[in-house]
Order: sequence, then C-alpha cells, then structure tokens
Amino acid sequence: MVDEVTLKDGVAEVVLSVPHKNTPICERLERSVKEAVQHLNEELKLAVRFSEMTQKRRAQFMNQVEGGPKPAQSQNQIDKVVAVLSGKGGVGKSSVTSLLAVALARMQQRVGILDADITGPSIPKMFGLREPPIMGDFGLLPVETDLGIKVISVNLLLPGEDEAVIWRGPRISGAIKQFWQEVFWGELDYLVVDLPPGTSDASLTVMQSIPLSGIVLVTSPQDLAGMVVRKAARMAVHLGAPLVGVVENMSYVLCPKCGEQFEPFGPSRTSEILQHIPVPFLGQLPLDPLLAETCDAGGVESYSLDTITPIVEAVTERMAKESRTPQGSR
Amino acid sequence: MVDEVTLKDGVAEVVLSVPHKNTPICERLERSVKEAVQHLNEELKLAVRFSEMTQKRRAQFMNQVEGGPKPAQSQNQIDKVVAVLSGKGGVGKSSVTSLLAVALARMQQRVGILDADITGPSIPKMFGLREPPIMGDFGLLPVETDLGIKVISVNLLLPGEDEAVIWRGPRISGAIKQFWQEVFWGELDYLVVDLPPGTSDASLTVMQSIPLSGIVLVTSPQDLAGMVVRKAARMAVHLGAPLVGVVENMSYVLCPKCGEQFEPFGPSRTSEILQHIPVPFLGQLPLDPLLAETCDAGGVESYSLDTITPIVEAVTERMAKESRTPQGSR
Repeated sequence: MVDEVTLKDGVAEVVLSVPHKNTPICERLERSVKEAVQHLNEELKLAVRFSEMTQKRRAQFMNQVEGGPKPAQSQNQIDKVVAVLSGKGGVGKSSVTSLLAVALARMQQRVGILDADITGPSIPKMFGLREPPIMGDFGLLPVETDLGIKVISVNLLLPGEDEAVIWRGPRISGAIKQFWQEVFWGELDYLVVDLPPGTSDASLTVMQSIPLSGIVLVTSPQDLAGMVVRKAARMAVHLGAPLVGVVENMSYVLCPKCGEQFEPFGPSRTSEILQHIPVPFLGQLPLDPLLAETCDAGGVESYSLDTITPIVEAVTERMAKESRTPQGSR
Repeated sequence: MVDEVTLKDGVAEVVLSVPHKNTPICERLERSVKEAVQHLNEELKLAVRFSEMTQKRRAQFMNQVEGGPKPAQSQNQIDKVVAVLSGKGGVGKSSVTSLLAVALARMQQRVGILDADITGPSIPKMFGLREPPIMGDFGLLPVETDLGIKVISVNLLLPGEDEAVIWRGPRISGAIKQFWQEVFWGELDYLVVDLPPGTSDASLTVMQSIPLSGIVLVTSPQDLAGMVVRKAARMAVHLGAPLVGVVENMSYVLCPKCGEQFEPFGPSRTSEILQHIPVPFLGQLPLDPLLAETCDAGGVESYSLDTITPIVEAVTERMAKESRTPQGSR
C-alpha cells in the first residue's frame, strides 16, 4: 500500500494508497506507520498522506485482502491475441481457429485457444479433449493438447458435451471475461479466440474487454454468408478492432471419383466483401470431407497443414508488421 | 367494457370489466350506465357490478385507451407456428425455413416467415426482398414475396443490408417480441420462425414468448454439428417446446462432371442425435451449388421442391396429428 516515500527538509513523507479516503482504517494505518518509523529513528519527523486507489487497483487490492487466488490476469504474459470472427455460423471459424493454432504450435510458438462460443463450443471435440480444467494457484488451468496448445472452453466445464448452456447475454459475457481474466494462461506467443456467430453479446464482449491484436475474418463463397460477414467486419471497424484479413473457407471440393474440382457453394463472391471493407485477402481453403471426419474423431492436430500454412504465414507477417507501426496497434 | 347484461325478476344487471376495482372511475362508470339505461326505460331497476380485468385484457384495454394503433397481435389469426432450430450455424436453417415456406405456399397455405436471426438475417436476400415494411392500421405490415409469403426481418428495416446490428440480448429479445406482437400478420395457416444459432437470448425468447406448435431441428452430417444440435434439442425439451423432427442438410453432393454422389461433410452421424433425443427423422437434403446461387440471386421461390416436399409433407402430417391429440398441443 506504500505508494511513495520522500525525505525533504528533515521531514519524511509517506504516501499510502487506500481503497477509500477518510475511513477509520486510515487512522489505524497512520498509527502503524508512525510506530514502525519511530522504532527505526525516534528523531525523524514524519507525515503520512493518503491517496485513493483507482477502481482497477482497488479490485486487485480487495482480491489480495480476501486471500483468494491472485488474479490470473496479472500473471499472464500474452504477446498477441487473434480473434477469429465471421458473424455467420458454419463457415468454419472453429476449423480455422484450430488449424491456425496447430500451425503456430508447429512453428514453435506457445499457443492458447479461448473458445468464446459459449452456447456452441466446438474446440474441445476437435482436439479430442474431455478432462475438466483444474484450479491452480493463480486461476483455472487450461487443458493441454498433445502439441501443448492450452485450451479453455465451456464444454470442458460441463458434465456432458451435449449439455445445453441456456444463458442470456450477461452470463455469456461474464463467462468470456472469466476465461480472459481468471484463467492462468501463463506465457503465450498467441492466444487465438474462437468467436460464435452473431454480433451480439459474445462478440461485443470480446471486442470491448480483450485487447485484440488482430481479427481474422472467415467467410464462405456465398454472398449470403458474405453479407453477414460484412456486418461483422463493420462491427469490428466500428469498435476499432484491427482486421488482419479475410479467409474464404469451403471454396472448392474435389470429387473422390474423378478428381474434378468444383464449387459446392457456387462461385466465390468474396470480392464483394473486399470492395466494401478495406482488408487483405488471406487465401482460400477447400471443403474437405477428411477434415470433418478428423475433427469428429478429435484428431485435428494430425490434419495436413498444407492449405492453412500460407494463410498462417500471411497472418503472422501482417501482425508482426502491425505491431511495428504504432498506429496499427492498440 | 360491458361484460354481461342479465334481466332477472325485473332487475337488470350490468357487469362492467374494469382495469382495477374500487377506483374513482367505477363511480363515474356506474353513473353513466344508469343515465343511459334510464334514458331508454325510466321504470327499469338497475344494478351495476364490476369485474376486474385479467393482465392480458388490461394490457389490451390500456392500449385502446392510449389511442395508439390497436395491437396487431389481437388481430392476427395464426393457426400454426413452426420454428426452425439448430443451435449450430451454417447448417441451412434459413434454406430449410425458406423452402418449407415456399412448399407450404404452393400447397395453397397462407404462410408467413418471422426472421428471428436479428444479427445475421438471411431471409430477405433469399427472396430478393428489399423494400421496407410499411405501417398499417394495426401494426407493421410484412413484405410479401411473389408467392404471397409474408416476411418480416431486421434486414428489411435497415438502411443497407450490410449494416451491423450490434445489440446486446435485451434488444434482440425486444425485436423478436415486436415481430410477434406488433406485426399485422393477419390470417395465416403457418408462421415459420427462422432462429439464429445458439441457445441464448433469441432462442430463449422465441421459446418463451411465442406459442410454438412445433420445432423442426436442422443438422448437418458432422457429429460436431450434431453435438450442438443436441444441445439445442435439450434446450427445447427443457423449455417444453414441441419437437417435430430432424432434417439433415448438406448430406451429399453430386459431382457435376462424373455424377458421383459423395459426402462432403463425411458420413452421417445424425443417428447419434436420434439415440439421445426421441424425435423422428424427417429426411436428408443435398448440398446443391445451385441452391446457393439461387438464394444469392434472390430466387428461392423458383428452386426445385423435389427434395423438400417429402420433408414438408412429414412436417404437416406430424403437426396435424399433434393438434388432434390434446397432450401434444400447447
């Protein structure tokens, strides 16, 4: 609580930071300080002043006083936070999140995944994770995948993966904040946040409460998906969240019999997103039956990274550039 | 406000329904009634009694008193309300909603679509609707498609289809309630409600505030989608909303070159939904590039109904059966 100690003209001034000024505890603190100083030097003149804590400091202090675990947040060192956003459901946000995390982990990066899709969490199943996270000294410990990717998701906390989370907005937002503030992520190079569809509570909370380094937009070739993705992109621009680029997923499929490559969702209309939102195009990904099967079996870490790698390289390159230009960072 | 008039043993009794009993207005009303009756027959003995309105009747009365437009809800006669639910995004809820509505309209049914996907509304684009709804005597008038399907969606009310609706839960719920209560649907055989992904505010509000006759679940072959659909189904069971059946969408695709039929999302895992949730299987729909293109061009009413028709027949049959058995209705 000692904010500052100064010695001037033979008078020592001690400034104590207190939750609120003019409370009984201030007198007691003043007495304690005077006794302690006199014990060291009976001659010294002493003045004790009080400064009032900010809300943030107050919250930390209360936490310490309550003797609970220290907030994980103050222990975490997370270099970059990337959110995977679409607005539209079912375009492959969770697949892109997972493959991005796997590719980064294979590049020797320390990676975490925060599954912000509270009512439709897909990440644990894709990695075959089932055991619940345990409580550590600083907060909830994420569950680690075979590659060492740290994962937190509502589905790891439910008694069964089919359980429905029937929560209104405030509880959804509360859970996401807890995943950010009260999970002991430790040191990470990248935390990848998997967002749910929509531009309501979950997306708002992630954009307002988590310091995002960049947002990767995922779309599918359909203009119908593109329209909803453009809404999400506008939301990000509106809230000042930095867009890294657009990935088009499920762009083409290969016929397993004749090898013909065709477009199951029709020709790409992603150029219409790029016309409206000034954001680079990061690349296309195929619709691959093997990815669906691999994810259902919990084996996304064994899936080929051939198609995702150029996209991940573009993302990391752009984000390194962003963090060098101050106007691009937050 | 006149509830009942009886004549017995030479005494006329008039029962007036009032918002609350024992208020000053009761005396004034009693005087008015006595004056009016004496004006007709000076000899008649008259007793005036008061009954208190129910909450619902009171709300309607207050609305009348305020001189605003009569609530649309009291004018609407909607025979059956079917919600299309998935929990998971991008499995084709909006396609199923639209094709269901088109098939019903072709069967000479009067059909409306309430687009409850407030942040990602797809219905207007699929039908090529752009003009805003106008205000009628009883409330907002839905926009009609070529086939006469009445549509209400947030996207019809926005200045541009790309505008983001960045609302937290309560406003989402408020909009859905307005679409139900303040839109003049008139007489409909079926109102089809297109739900957004998730089991949060929008789905909760639809299940709690709209008297649903049945819910059609939509899934894709992936178990990952199925898991989220099982969550949504549990929510419906939990809230007592009646499940009609499950449709599996994007089950197979045809190679345009060699005609091979294959499974772009891997083999069907829908049987695992049926193991856990006691609900009939209504059928499979293909992934068809032509449907994506047709919807992007606003022409869903011209799309072939071959694959959806057996599903719609199963839905109408099941719902007719439900409404004959009292325990199945609400």
